[in-house]
This record gives sequence, C-alpha cells and structure tokens, in this order.
Amino acid sequence: MKDEESGRAALARLLETAGSPYDRESIEGLIEGVLAAPPKAQASWHRLVAQRVEPALAKALDRRLLQRKKAWRDGLAAEDFALLPRSLRLLRLRSELARRGLDGFLVPRADAHQGEFVALSSERLHWLTGFTGSAGLAVVLEDRAALFVDGRYTLQASREVESPLYELRHMSEEPPEDWIASSLKKGGVLGYDPWLSTLSEVERLRPAAARAGAELKAVGDNPLDRVWLDRPPPPLAPVVPHEERFAGESSASKRARLGAALGVDRIAAAVLTLPESIAWLLNIRGGDVPHTPLPLSFAFLWSDGRASLFIDPRKLAPGTLAHLGSSVTVAPAEALGPALGELARAGGRISADPQTAAAAIFERLEAAGAKIERGRDPCLLPKACKNPVELEGARAAHRRDGAAMARFLAWLSEEAPKGGESEISAAERLEALRSEGEHFCDLSFATISGAGAHGAIVHYRASRESDARLERGMLYLVDSGAQYLDGTTDVTRTVAIGEASAERRDRFTRVLKGHIALLLARFPKGTSGAQLDAFARRALWQEGLDYDHGTGHGVGSYLGVHEGPQRIAKTGTNEALLPGMILSDEPGYYKSGEYGIRIENLLAVEVLEARGERETLGFESLTLVPLDRSLIEPALLDGEEKAWLDQYHARVRAEISPLVDQKTRSWLAAATAPLAR
Amino acid sequence: MKDEESGRAALARLLETAGSPYDRESIEGLIEGVLAAPPKAQASWHRLVAQRVEPALAKALDRRLLQRKKAWRDGLAAEDFALLPRSLRLLRLRSELARRGLDGFLVPRADAHQGEFVALSSERLHWLTGFTGSAGLAVVLEDRAALFVDGRYTLQASREVESPLYELRHMSEEPPEDWIASSLKKGGVLGYDPWLSTLSEVERLRPAAARAGAELKAVGDNPLDRVWLDRPPPPLAPVVPHEERFAGESSASKRARLGAALGVDRIAAAVLTLPESIAWLLNIRGGDVPHTPLPLSFAFLWSDGRASLFIDPRKLAPGTLAHLGSSVTVAPAEALGPALGELARAGGRISADPQTAAAAIFERLEAAGAKIERGRDPCLLPKACKNPVELEGARAAHRRDGAAMARFLAWLSEEAPKGGESEISAAERLEALRSEGEHFCDLSFATISGAGAHGAIVHYRASRESDARLERGMLYLVDSGAQYLDGTTDVTRTVAIGEASAERRDRFTRVLKGHIALLLARFPKGTSGAQLDAFARRALWQEGLDYDHGTGHGVGSYLGVHEGPQRIAKTGTNEALLPGMILSDEPGYYKSGEYGIRIENLLAVEVLEARGERETLGFESLTLVPLDRSLIEPALLDGEEKAWLDQYHARVRAEISPLVDQKTRSWLAAATAPLAR
Repeated sequence: MKDEESGRAALARLLETAGSPYDRESIEGLIEGVLAAPPKAQASWHRLVAQRVEPALAKALDRRLLQRKKAWRDGLAAEDFALLPRSLRLLRLRSELARRGLDGFLVPRADAHQGEFVALSSERLHWLTGFTGSAGLAVVLEDRAALFVDGRYTLQASREVESPLYELRHMSEEPPEDWIASSLKKGGVLGYDPWLSTLSEVERLRPAAARAGAELKAVGDNPLDRVWLDRPPPPLAPVVPHEERFAGESSASKRARLGAALGVDRIAAAVLTLPESIAWLLNIRGGDVPHTPLPLSFAFLWSDGRASLFIDPRKLAPGTLAHLGSSVTVAPAEALGPALGELARAGGRISADPQTAAAAIFERLEAAGAKIERGRDPCLLPKACKNPVELEGARAAHRRDGAAMARFLAWLSEEAPKGGESEISAAERLEALRSEGEHFCDLSFATISGAGAHGAIVHYRASRESDARLERGMLYLVDSGAQYLDGTTDVTRTVAIGEASAERRDRFTRVLKGHIALLLARFPKGTSGAQLDAFARRALWQEGLDYDHGTGHGVGSYLGVHEGPQRIAKTGTNEALLPGMILSDEPGYYKSGEYGIRIENLLAVEVLEARGERETLGFESLTLVPLDRSLIEPALLDGEEKAWLDQYHARVRAEISPLVDQKTRSWLAAATAPLAR
Repeated sequence: MKDEESGRAALARLLETAGSPYDRESIEGLIEGVLAAPPKAQASWHRLVAQRVEPALAKALDRRLLQRKKAWRDGLAAEDFALLPRSLRLLRLRSELARRGLDGFLVPRADAHQGEFVALSSERLHWLTGFTGSAGLAVVLEDRAALFVDGRYTLQASREVESPLYELRHMSEEPPEDWIASSLKKGGVLGYDPWLSTLSEVERLRPAAARAGAELKAVGDNPLDRVWLDRPPPPLAPVVPHEERFAGESSASKRARLGAALGVDRIAAAVLTLPESIAWLLNIRGGDVPHTPLPLSFAFLWSDGRASLFIDPRKLAPGTLAHLGSSVTVAPAEALGPALGELARAGGRISADPQTAAAAIFERLEAAGAKIERGRDPCLLPKACKNPVELEGARAAHRRDGAAMARFLAWLSEEAPKGGESEISAAERLEALRSEGEHFCDLSFATISGAGAHGAIVHYRASRESDARLERGMLYLVDSGAQYLDGTTDVTRTVAIGEASAERRDRFTRVLKGHIALLLARFPKGTSGAQLDAFARRALWQEGLDYDHGTGHGVGSYLGVHEGPQRIAKTGTNEALLPGMILSDEPGYYKSGEYGIRIENLLAVEVLEARGERETLGFESLTLVPLDRSLIEPALLDGEEKAWLDQYHARVRAEISPLVDQKTRSWLAAATAPLAR
C-alpha cells in the first residue's frame, strides 16, 4: 500500500512535468475509463495524457493502470456471479423498483446508441441475468420475469440464465407485447429507461401495457444502475482522425451535401445518435466498444453543414480537435440534454430517427416544444454507398486479408490432419497472421472457429471449456474478419480435414451453388436484398434443406461489420440495393451434432454494363480466398458455375500469390487449380 | 304512356294470381335493383318474384324490365357526361360540401365491402371524375382536387379525367397523405364516408390532416349521393345456395370450426364485411357485381357456430333460406347498425378486421362500448386453402376451360392469319366457346384481347374505338377466364400470327423460363410468395429486362379471380404459401408500342413427397392450354425446362384431346408435339 502511495505521488510529478492536464486525482478517472474500454485502448491511451509522453511517464502510467486492473471488478465475471448470484441481483433490482413504486422494469441489451457491440457499462442485461448474447430484453415484474431472445440465442440463453428466475421466450414468436399485456397487473406501472429504448420500441410496447390496463413510464436514473454497485464508468478510448486517403471525402464535403439535403426538406437540424453515423460524417474513429471503431457520442448536423459533437473531451486524441475544424463544435456528453432544448427553442424543424434514436431524445425535444420530423438518420444511405476511394480501400484490404487467409489455410492443411491444433489455437494463429498486415487495427468480430459439431452452432465461440481439437474426418468452419484502416473484412470458409463423405460434399456443393447464384445475379435498380435471398437457397430447397439465418448483411468501411440498411434475407428488407453497398453472401447448411457448412464472401454492388432496357446492378466479389475443392462435387455444378469457380480461383491465385511466401504459394497453386472436367 | 299503364295493371294482376309478395308498386323497386345489378341478373331474376312464374307473368315481367331499362339513367354513360359534365359534377359536390361546412371530402373507388368489382350504385368516383379504373381516390377540396391512382392507371386516368379539374398523382410515389398535409387549410375539416374507407385507411390519413392542423371527420349521408341525382339503387341479383358437391364442406361445419377457433381466442363474435368471406362461410353465391358471384351483405359469426346475415331479403332465391338453416338468422341490411350496438352491449370481445372492414363498423362498435379485438377476417385463410373437393373441382373446371381454349386457339390459328378477325370478335368467339362448358356461369373478368401494340398495355380492354384487326406479323395476347360452379379460371396465352422475329422469340422464351422456374420451385413451409417472385424474373433480369406488375395473385373457388392473402410479387407479401392455395404464375414482357407477352397458368400449392429435412411445398399446374411452340427458342431452354415443357404438353394433349372436336384434336396434336432436340 505504501508502495502504491509512493507510485501515485511519482506519477503526479511526472504528469506535471509533462504539462499534462491530469493530476493525481483526475488521472484515476481516465484510467478507469480506459479499463472500461476494450483491451485495445490500453495500448494507445498514453496519447490522451499529454502531447509528449516520455518513457518514465509511460512506465508510471502503465504501472498505475496495471494496479487498477488487478483490483478491477465489474460484476460481470464468473467469480462475480459466484459472489452475487443472479437471484440476488434480481432481488436487489426488485427492491429498488418497489422503493420507487414501479411494478416492473425493462432491461434491454442496449446502450443509448443501439449498437450491436456495447461498452461494459451498458452490459446491464448481462449483469442482471448472465445472458451474454448481442440482443435480448428482460421484463422484470414483481413476481415474474421473462427474457426474450431471438432464434440465434435460445439455446445459449437457456444455458446462461438460471431458468427458474426467468421465463425464456422467443422474441418474435412470443413477443414481449403479448407477455406484457397478459402479465402486467391492472393499474400497474412498467418503467423503462428512455435512453435504452428507441421511440419505435416504446410505441410498440405502450399499447401492450395499455391492454393490461397499465402504464409504460419513462424512468430517469436507471434503477438497475443503482444496484449494480461495481458498474464501470463509460469507456474512454482515443478518438482519432480517419484520414481522407481512406475516407475518400472530407467531412466538410459530407456535411455540406447532407446539410443541403436537410435544407431541401426544410429541416433545420438532424439529431444523430448512431456513433457509426457520427464516425462516418466527421471522419473520426474511436475504440469504445469491441471490434468496431466507434466513438460513443451524439451529434447535431445543421442544414448549413455545421455540426455539434457531444462527447467526453478526454477521449479526443491530440490532433482530433484540429481535424474536426471550426465548423464542428465539441461539447461534453452532459451538454446534450440542454442542447436539445435550445435546438427546440430555435424554432426550426428537427429530424430524428424513431427507429434508432432513444425515446429520451424525442421526449426532451417534445418537452421543449420542438417541431419534430421523424426521419431516417441522414447518414445511413450515404455511408452504406461506398465512394471509389473506400471501394479501392476495400479491395486492398481484401487482398491483405486474402493473403493472411491463404497463409492460414496452407498452414492448416498441413497441421490440422496431425491433430495437434484446436479451435482456439487455430483462431489465434489466424489472428496473428492477419495482424501482420498493413493497416490492421483489430478483428472485426470474435472469430468463429468451429470444428465438427461446433460448426453447426451458427454463432459458436470457442471457450477454454469447449475448445475442440481439429481432427481428420471433420469439417472445420472458420468465420472471421478484420478491421483495417482502409476496409472491414468478413469471410467464412469451410474445409475438410482429411476426406469428406459424399453427403458432406453434396451439401457443400449446394451451399456453393447458392453462393454463386447470388453473386452472379443481375437485377434491375430498385431490387431489394429480400428479392434475391431465395437465389442463395434454391439448390438446398430442391433437396428439402435450408438454413435458419439471413443470407447477407451490410458491411461498413472501417466501421461496423454489420451495417444497415442493406440486407439479404427472407423478410423485412425492402431496402433497394444501391451501387457501392457492400454485403456478405453467406448461405450455409447445418447438421446439428455433426457439422456445419458456410461459405461467405463480401460483395460490392456495382452498375453493370448497359444491356436491355433497365439499369442493371450486379456484384463484384471482394473476398479473395480459395474454396476447398475437395468438398466440391463437380457433377452438381452447371457450366456457368464451373466457369465462375475456375475464374475466381485464377483471380485469387493471380492477386494473392505475389503477397505470400513460397510455401503458401505452392499450396495456393494447387488449391486454385481448375476443376477437372 | 297509356300502353305502359295498361301493361302495369296487367302485371299487377298476374303477380297477384301467382301469389307473389310483390304488387304494382313494390315490383318497381325490384326491377330497379335488377337493372342496377350486372346484366346477368336479368336472365335469372324471375325466381325472386314468385315460386312459380308462368309464361304470361314472365313475359309481363320482361316487358316491364325492358320499359324501365329504356328509360334507365345512371349518370355514368358517355351521354350523361355530355349532359352533366365533370366540371358541373365537381361544382355540385363542392356546393353540397360548403352547405355542410366541410372543407373537403374523400371519394374513394370503394363500396362498403372493399371489393375489386363494385355495383353501379357505388361507382361514385366514376360518376364524379369519369375515371373507370378499379382503384383510386379523389380528394376534393374547396379550390383544388387531386386524383390518386396506381401505376396501372396513370395513363388511363389522364385520358378519362379532365386534367384541369384534378391534379393527377401516383398513389404510392406521391401518396395522398403528403398532398393532404400540404393542401388542407389549418382548422379545416376533411370529410369521409366511414362506410367507404377501412379503419386502416382512416388511421393512415388522420395524422396527415393533423399535420395540416386540420381534422378528418366521418360524415353520415354521403354528400356525393345527394348530388348524384340519378344514382341507381343497390343491386338485387339472386342469391343461391352453393352446393356442397362443389364447396366440399357444409356451412355448418365451417361455422363450427371457425367459431371454435374464435372461442379459443376468447372472442364472442367476428364481424364479417367481405362478401366473399360470407359467400364462402355460408355456401351461397350471388350476382351483385360483375364477374364475381358476390352476395353484397354483412354477417356476424359467433363462437358457437351461429351466424347472422344482413342482406336485402328480396335477393334470396327460393330455397336459399332453407339452405341457410336455423343457425343462420337473416335480417335486412338496415338492421346491421342496431345489431352492432346489441353485439357491443352483450359484452363479449368482438373481432373485426381493420384492413378490410369499414371504419363505420369500428365507430359503431366503439360508440356502443364494445370490447374490440382487431383481428384478421377469420375466413381469409380457410377460404384461401382449398379443400380436396374444391381442388378436384378446379381441375375439372380447368379441363373444360382448356378444351374451350384449345378450340379457340385452333380456330385462331386458321382465322387470324386471314386478317378477318379483330380483338373484340376473337374475345366474343372465346366467350361463346367457354359458355358451352358445363357449369359455366360467367367470365371471371373482362377478357384482355390485345393485338400487336395493345398487348403491351397490361390492363388493355378493347373498345369499339380501339378494336384492332388481328394480322400477320403480330403477337396476340389473350388473358381471360371463367367462373364455373366448380372453379374459377384465369389463363394468358401469347401467340404469334405468322412468323415471329428472333427478338420476340427470345423475349417469349425468357418469360417462359421465368414461368417454369416459378412452377418448378420447391420451397420449405413458411416461404412467402415474395421470396419466390425473383425466380420468375431472373431470365429477363439477365438481359436487363423486367415487367412492372406482380407475378401471381390468389384465385378463389367460384369466387374472386383475385383473392388474398396469398400473392407472388416484389414486396408486401410476407404471407406464407399454404397447401391448397391457388395462385397465378404470370410473368410477362412488354415493349411499348410494339407487342406484349404474358404467360399465365394457375397453380395449386401442394405438399411434395418428403425429401431432406424440411417439409417442402411445390406447385401443381391446373391450367391445361398449349404454349405457342413457334415462339420458343429451344437453345435458350435447359434440359429441365425442355423436359417440363414436353411433359406439360403431353399432359395437355392427353387430358384435352378427348374433350374436343376432330379438327381441334389435330391442331392440338401438332401444338403439343415435343420440342425438336
């Protein structure tokens, strides 16, 4: 303890010498915020402390960080659940609700920005229930509670949540509306945190409460936060400029054209609540959540092209303020509430997106008498349609990613049959190879490395307990990707270790046929992903087979690996595909308990050469990774499919060979050889 | 006049002798109602007059009908528009609105049952604007008026409506909501007839009026009816039993099982407003609107299987009351309003369908304090899923229809090249041939008979002015169908008169490839028509071509030729296809000013033999009519497509040959010969 004291004193002196704005006390808050951010932030946070960080200061900072890290408690680790079990957490929440006169409370897996990845401080559903999936909603009443999850997570939730505490429900088949309508007592009050639910969600649940003769009520000061005693602070990861050589367009230009479009619609300002929109609009990137370089923040965009950014200023790396320039005002996050009031009082029409913005935004605007225009986040479509520089970046990133994948697959072909590798060791090898690539920043999501039966679990994540050895006779499925400064990648390959059975080759080839049918599709402008989805399923449907997930998701440019509004799936995706959008093409087939197959390339929507009468779009394949020829049954492919496969493999060979070592190059030559006719 | 007087006196005596409930005065109302029904009713109305109609009475009735018919004025004929031009009609309506303190009024093309075909008395939009399409909405304000129509009708509307009177708008691209929000004056009152708009429509338009600071207000006693002086009365066409040998299930059985399902949902009664639902549920058919055997009426279905039918009792043919039985109460249409009040006061939960039921239904129920459950019309899905008897009937009807089509096409192949036939003469020939078939009742819609460039007009209807001669070098498109007691048909064939160019053969073959791709689709249970739509377009998309209409609509069983909820189209059709549903498969290609191509068969959804893991559905082809082999480019077909075509033609030949004359049989043999390989 004495040691720690003297360390802190030394650190304080070093901070002062370096001219840092931080002192002995305030540095503690920064360190807490860095620890509350993903581990990556711990490698780059020094620049937030001072313009120049000499080695002595760096060492002192790291030592202090390590001390704090050792004592870190966030309530989310297995041992935390042992100390404070789920039942007690629920009890504490219920006491707090009773204290406030609430009959129930909504606990969504969401933060104020509705992202797929959230910071530790927003892991409320995880803390309460133990459920770690990326989507879900708990409804806690006095004597009952239910957890709603989608099809991806029903199994996982039943393992993670102690079932007597929560009734487990399927989000879409047994929607919360019905449960609320039938479980809430008459005259009851069901609270919700208006920062954690979108206006659309609130408007969907409100009538359900009304059906029960009860009320849905916004509650400030989240009651769960009161009982989550060791809740971490908001994350503090450095926010840095995203250079124009990667972005392809200056922020000023983006703000000018989007602002002008607002003006045409007679809108004075748009409220932006999605960090990916803000990152794109202002050409900045952060690190507040895992795998997606998000700067958690809010912003306004005015019709004259000016913007206001609401963000913890401690996160701004040196140079970022200058990069933002004089047309972008920076204010602390707490200033958002009052600023919404000012916005309203200025009298112009304010747009906000009811699908993505927190209900609190609308409530504040309404309370201040704003003229609200419900409109889509104006950045969504422009961000989704990549410009030529972003597309060129994506191609370059995919070449680098393809080289890493080729090195990995070549290594795997040699090592896996020996039986010395496991799901985790393989994933680590792959990450190491990727991280050698130029502009590499992070994985774009936790690698899905599934051997044998684990491949059939669509969102499998190997743990030390589940980690399976790769062995002959297995199929191995690896779904992975990276964040490079110039692009985001996501690729899935399924490979046979040793020889595969006829059934497995049949299934793989049908999945491949679907994959090819989608990427070769030509379609008129205006066509949505939903219209194309069945192309990817047809060869499976012919044999009474299918897969229970979407076929393709949008992908950002050094941003979210899952990005809307574009999507290829069975339903709910009437958004027209537009040139420049990047989507995945990932049909699959899963035989529970035996094996899983998925093939995924990223595609960019492109305008095809004029033919006929309609402007016609198609896809450019971005991903450059060989497909396991030993799993292909050539008799099932038609001429067009074979031609595509051989051309694709020839392209992979031509583009990737120069980037890899001799051994990988030899493997690649064989792996990309034309199919025997 | 003297003559007419003595005729009426004689008729009165004959009525009395026959024991008719009608006398000199009341028979006039019946005759007006018969004249207000489609012409078909005039061939069968005698049975409404008396149990036995002797020849003298029959003659007197027909003479009186003819007298009244000569003097018939409904305000809808061309000469009526000459006498009272559109501008004066609009002026009269505006005066009436002013008199009532209304700033505007909605005039939808709709009756109280939301059907595609409406009776003369409901042709308000036609009377006001001259627009004759089957969907549209006029919004009439003090100084402006707009007519909203969908893509099918933009051209037609611009011809039929005098444009200075109405701003012409595209229903979905420039929706009425926006026009109302920007055109209605602050504090204004926009009236609507709550019997002519569904609750959903009202709920969509109400916020638009609110955006303008105005109000949407239900108006009793439609103001337009006040100024449409010669508006016909509601139609009176005989309502007859639909025999169980065609329906396949007794009304008692249907009512019992649907009632039980209501009971499970704790619903006391469902309000039925769709005449096709009532026709299906009660096994009755009427003739109040053209081409669909609808008995315009309302009904309640109780959870115990009882029903109440609200209908003008004059329409009930002898035997229909007995057929309905003691569990179905019959009350006059005017009794509906009070009955809704009683229903509400009885206290149980009442279901009504906001998508299809008039807003007035909900308003009455609400006013009476009913517990309303918004639910889908309970007959929709059971009616859409045909039972085995209905499917057998459909097959039989399609054989008969196929025989008529074969005779027609054989005749056409000989006559058309001579140049002596026209669109109308050909359509009349086809109708005559069809009408010879057993169980024939009516066409299922006005035949689309389009030669050359007229084929490119998707909803073309030949008039005396447009009637084109069939000539060599043309493509001829004929889309037609019939109502048989055992089934409803709808088929489109495109034939070449003389030789067709390579381009036309290419286009025809691509349309055919799409048609085949859809009907050969195998898909898992749960798949919607929207998911399959692109199969029918793919071969066209490949060449930058497409068609701007849906691919398939549902079809009833001796009911609507357009029936929901099933549908195959680009969007808005998430309804899963279910075994027994009948759908059309009708891709097309249209070259404006030159030619149109469409190929349409009806398909029934069937469960396919088990294969793989998922319950798989597919289609049975019901239509049995040869496809013009001279328009097929065999090089564009793959092996599977050729095999289907030859098998289909072999089946057509086998099933139709025994039903036709020797000459047609010879033609059929050639027309259905296998493709040359």
